[in-house]
Amino acid sequence: MSKQSTKSSKKAAVIDQKPTILITNDDGITAPGIAALVEAAKPFGRVVVVAPDAPQSGMGHAITIGKPLRLNQVHVFGDVEAYQCSGTPVDCVKIAVDKVLHKKPDFCFSGINHGSNSSINIIYSGTMSAAMEAAIEGICAVGFSYEDYSFEADFSLSQQVVSEVLHKLTTKQLPQKGLYNVNIPKVAISKFKGIKVCRQANAKWNENFVERVDPTGKKYFWLTGEFQNRDKGKDTDVWALQHGYASMVPVQYDLTDYDLYKKIKS
Amino acid sequence: MSKQSTKSSKKAAVIDQKPTILITNDDGITAPGIAALVEAAKPFGRVVVVAPDAPQSGMGHAITIGKPLRLNQVHVFGDVEAYQCSGTPVDCVKIAVDKVLHKKPDFCFSGINHGSNSSINIIYSGTMSAAMEAAIEGICAVGFSYEDYSFEADFSLSQQVVSEVLHKLTTKQLPQKGLYNVNIPKVAISKFKGIKVCRQANAKWNENFVERVDPTGKKYFWLTGEFQNRDKGKDTDVWALQHGYASMVPVQYDLTDYDLYKKIKS
Repeated sequence: MSKQSTKSSKKAAVIDQKPTILITNDDGITAPGIAALVEAAKPFGRVVVVAPDAPQSGMGHAITIGKPLRLNQVHVFGDVEAYQCSGTPVDCVKIAVDKVLHKKPDFCFSGINHGSNSSINIIYSGTMSAAMEAAIEGICAVGFSYEDYSFEADFSLSQQVVSEVLHKLTTKQLPQKGLYNVNIPKVAISKFKGIKVCRQANAKWNENFVERVDPTGKKYFWLTGEFQNRDKGKDTDVWALQHGYASMVPVQYDLTDYDLYKKIKS
Repeated sequence: MSKQSTKSSKKAAVIDQKPTILITNDDGITAPGIAALVEAAKPFGRVVVVAPDAPQSGMGHAITIGKPLRLNQVHVFGDVEAYQCSGTPVDCVKIAVDKVLHKKPDFCFSGINHGSNSSINIIYSGTMSAAMEAAIEGICAVGFSYEDYSFEADFSLSQQVVSEVLHKLTTKQLPQKGLYNVNIPKVAISKFKGIKVCRQANAKWNENFVERVDPTGKKYFWLTGEFQNRDKGKDTDVWALQHGYASMVPVQYDLTDYDLYKKIKS
């Protein structure tokens, strides 16, 4: 073996030791939020993107079972390996593990979502469902969401939060056996107060469908709603966001209601 | 007021006291499972159906936010008031409350699903997500699922279980402030052992995408997988179903991981 090839092998080994980071989202692969996440994550490992080829907001934990999926490599993040998938955010994680990486990545980061996924929004959110799917697979996962729905949102503060969380995870200051829902407030960086570990607020949406009539005279309905926080606690994600903190909720997916379980059992 | 109209008013008042029961599903309004649920629920109150106009399996907690919804009355359950909606199972619950019932029903029952929704399947399931949406609204809700995927499934045992659960709920032997995931085993009625209150088993799916090539030479993928139960407990829903019981898991939707929360906080 030549000196040159020994050097190359060593270099390859070092590269292989870098963590593999899978990135996905629910706003689609061309959304500014995922580009911001890719940039912030690059210093922490080898980034591979597998994200929906179109917006998939509000898809929750949907999977595609009645039709096949398409998967195509794209070049939208410079030299970062990236694929667009015709499925849901959860499909993206599944196909990334089985058909792109052929192994489980060390981390899965989802987002940065255009819009908050605090409190009950977690269960409607494709962003958080993708992260949860990774966690079910045993992969350390974080969903990042920013309290600004616009496509022109400024992700500077969000990227600062991503860097801080990724630093804490890769240096094991935060448990890697975890799933986290991180929401970033829409405040000036100078007014940002830091990251606060929270519980999920008890909130809901009050629906109000807008009724309209199409050009052929048939009725149709648009889902709209008003967010209602029923939770006065100062330890919730909603409280944190309202007071200039980024919220970090550790998340799990055993939905058993153990209080009710014990009550019925007895 | 004539005797006749007084009698009518009294009769109307009695009818109004019957609980209002909203029924939905994720297999679509023409699936045999929802017809079986409607029949089993009719003795317990005034049944109104709002269900997807097409199969929506695996839709999880998806909602429709990028396009409008259609809602049309149909006559597929005899004299039972029924509507088909172009949205997801969760959309059906939302639009039923806001645009069909104009109030919250007393109960929401979802199913009977063609196929089990035990353990981790709860988070992929449109059936259970519809029930959960109702619970978030404060409505007592149950999702029913039968361990037989076929359209020709025999729902006799499932209807027996539905009747037992609805009897317990309407007579308050079971707390009405609750959300329940009920799964019915595929066993002969003679071998059925009864309903067992359980916790959600710790299980997952191991994905295995089938890769094919379309007539134009482009690759496509079908999601398939193998169910893997990692949980040896005899108190789980998977164990109950394997041993001839119907499982009943009380369910909640605060996804905070309180163990990890305390660990990080300290």
